[in-house]
Amino acid sequence: METGRSPEIRKDAIHNRWVIFSPARARRPSDFKSKSDSNSNSKTQTECPFCADHEHECAPEIFRFPPESTSDWQIRVIQNLYPALSRELEPSNNQCGGGPVTVTGFGFHDVVIESPAHPIHLTDLSPVQVAEVLLAYKKRIDQLRAFDSIKYVQVFKNHGASAGASLSHSHSQIMALPVVPPTAAARIQSMKEYFGQTGKCGLCQARQDDLFVDGSIHFISIVPFAATFPFEIWIVPRDHSSHFHELDNDKALDLGGLLKLMLVKMSLQLNNPPYNFMIHTAPLQIDSTQLPFTHWFIQIVPQLTVVGGFELGTGCYINPVIPEDAAKVLREVSIPI
Amino acid sequence: METGRSPEIRKDAIHNRWVIFSPARARRPSDFKSKSDSNSNSKTQTECPFCADHEHECAPEIFRFPPESTSDWQIRVIQNLYPALSRELEPSNNQCGGGPVTVTGFGFHDVVIESPAHPIHLTDLSPVQVAEVLLAYKKRIDQLRAFDSIKYVQVFKNHGASAGASLSHSHSQIMALPVVPPTAAARIQSMKEYFGQTGKCGLCQARQDDLFVDGSIHFISIVPFAATFPFEIWIVPRDHSSHFHELDNDKALDLGGLLKLMLVKMSLQLNNPPYNFMIHTAPLQIDSTQLPFTHWFIQIVPQLTVVGGFELGTGCYINPVIPEDAAKVLREVSIPI
Repeated sequence: METGRSPEIRKDAIHNRWVIFSPARARRPSDFKSKSDSNSNSKTQTECPFCADHEHECAPEIFRFPPESTSDWQIRVIQNLYPALSRELEPSNNQCGGGPVTVTGFGFHDVVIESPAHPIHLTDLSPVQVAEVLLAYKKRIDQLRAFDSIKYVQVFKNHGASAGASLSHSHSQIMALPVVPPTAAARIQSMKEYFGQTGKCGLCQARQDDLFVDGSIHFISIVPFAATFPFEIWIVPRDHSSHFHELDNDKALDLGGLLKLMLVKMSLQLNNPPYNFMIHTAPLQIDSTQLPFTHWFIQIVPQLTVVGGFELGTGCYINPVIPEDAAKVLREVSIPI
Repeated sequence: METGRSPEIRKDAIHNRWVIFSPARARRPSDFKSKSDSNSNSKTQTECPFCADHEHECAPEIFRFPPESTSDWQIRVIQNLYPALSRELEPSNNQCGGGPVTVTGFGFHDVVIESPAHPIHLTDLSPVQVAEVLLAYKKRIDQLRAFDSIKYVQVFKNHGASAGASLSHSHSQIMALPVVPPTAAARIQSMKEYFGQTGKCGLCQARQDDLFVDGSIHFISIVPFAATFPFEIWIVPRDHSSHFHELDNDKALDLGGLLKLMLVKMSLQLNNPPYNFMIHTAPLQIDSTQLPFTHWFIQIVPQLTVVGGFELGTGCYINPVIPEDAAKVLREVSIPI
C-alpha cells in the first residue's frame, strides 16, 4: 500500500460518477479489516426459520432444488415474510411530468435459502453447489420476466448484520421492480455514451493487467478502475452478454468456482468482513439497439467503511484504497489447501 | 403508524430518483430507535485533540471565533489531519470523453470544532451559539469560493460512530471540491425540469401541511415527500435563495433555533440516534439563468437503518416509514421545559 501517493478523483465511466481516492487515509490492508466477525448475529439453529424442518415458519415456497426433494432439499426459493413490494397490488402506469409522482408498490421480493444447514455459508459450498444457487436465481428471473409490468430484477446478498442481513442463515434476495432503478438507468446512459464515442462496450474493455485479480474460462474478476468501496470486486463475463439470465449450466459452474474463490480470498485477506454482492444486469425490456453496450456483472462489496454525511450529501464516495493496490492484495492471497 | 397501508414507490422530483415506501416493514416508531446510544465512541477528555488546551495536537487552524480569543475560544475552524483532498496539489482541468478519466485530488477538507468542551453537543448550545457555528461555515465558504477551481462546497456533520464520526467531540466538516458532485448535478437537472414544466421552484412549493414539522420566521422544517430515510428532515428557507452563503446574521440566529429544535426533537423521539446533516447548496459558479430553480436546504438524516445490497445495487432506497407519519411523530414531540 503506497503512502506517498497523492489523492486522485476518478470518473467511473460505467456509472458516470466521481470517486475520490485518498491513499493518505489508508495505511495497511489490516486497517480495513473488519472489527468484528460477521457471523455474530446468529440466531441459534433451533430458532431459525430458514433451517431444515422449519419450513412451516416461512412465507410460501416458490420452488426448491432438487425439485422433487422432500426434507433433503438443498436450496429453497421462498417469498419474503416482510416484502418491500407487494405481488398483490395492481401495477400502475408510470406517471410523467413535474411534481410529486406516486406509483403503487407492485413487485416481488423473494428469498433464496442457499443451504438447509444453519452454519453453512456460501464459501462452504462446492463450486457445483454455488452454481445451483446461481441457476436458482436464473430460474426465478425467468419466471418474473413473464410479467410485463416488471422492468428490472435485482439479485443481491447481504452477509452479516452490518451489511443488512437480518438472519445469519445463508441466503440471498431477489427483488422484481416495476421501474428501472437509478443505478441501472445511469449505467445504461453512461455505457451508451462510451459506446457512442468508442464503438466499444465499456465492460468488454475492462482488461487492465494491474486491476486483474483472477480469471476462469468464461469470467474475469477485477477491481474496477473507479471502485466506489475499498476492495470492491467485479466478476465480468469474458464474452459480451447483456442479461444474467443468459447464463447456461456450463458457465454457471465456471462462475460458481470463481465467485467462491473471490469470497474466500476476501474473507482471508479482510478477516471475514460483512459483505454484499449484487448482480447488475440489463433491464428486462431493452430493445436490440441497447444490446451492444449492456453487459452484466457481479459486484462484491466488503463492508469496511461507514457511509457518512459527505457520501450522503454528494453521492460521491471516498475510497481510501487505490484499486491497483487492492487488486494486488487480492491477487496475492494464498489459499490454504 | 398505519400498518394496513400498501407500499408505494414515489419519485423524488428534486433528485429525480425513486424511493420505495414499505409500511409493512414498519411497526411502531420505537422499532426505529437506535439500539445503542450514539455517544459511546468517546475518547476521554484527556486524549481528545479537539478539546481546549490540545490545540497543538491538531492540524493548522484557519480561524477561530471570537477572532481575538485565546484559550477562551468558542469555535475553531482547522484543517483536517487526514484530508481526503489536498490543498497542495495543482488543480487539473476536467477531462471529457469516453473511457477512464482521472483528475488530481485538489481541494480542501476542513473541520469545524463546535465547542471547546468535550461533553457539549450541538443540541447543548444556545440558538445564538448554533448560529455562530452556521456563520463559521459561511465565513469559510466565502474564503473557499475565491478559488476558481473550487466548484462546490459540501458542509456536513457526522454525529456518532456509525454515522461516520471518528471523534466524539462535537464537530462538522467542510469539503471544497473541484467537481460538481453527482447529487448536486442531478438535483439541478431535476429542479430545472420541474421549473420548465411548472414555472416554479420545486422547493418554494414544498409546503404540504401533512409533511410540515415546524417553522420559524425565515425557515420551515418538513419531512420530504419522497424521504430517502426514515424520519429524514429538511430545513428550507421560506424565501427563495440559491446559496447557503447568502445567510445573514438575522437568518442565522433564526436558523440556529430551528436546527437545534429539530435535533432535540429527533433525539427525544428516536433515542439519541447517530445522525448526519448536510447543507445542500448550489454550485459556486452557476449562471444567472439557474438562480430561479436552485434553492439551498439542510437535510438531517438519523441513522436508523442499514444500507444493504438492494440500495447499493439499485441506488433505490427502501424507507419503512411513510413521510406523513414521520412528520406527525416529529410534530407532536413535546419538549421538556
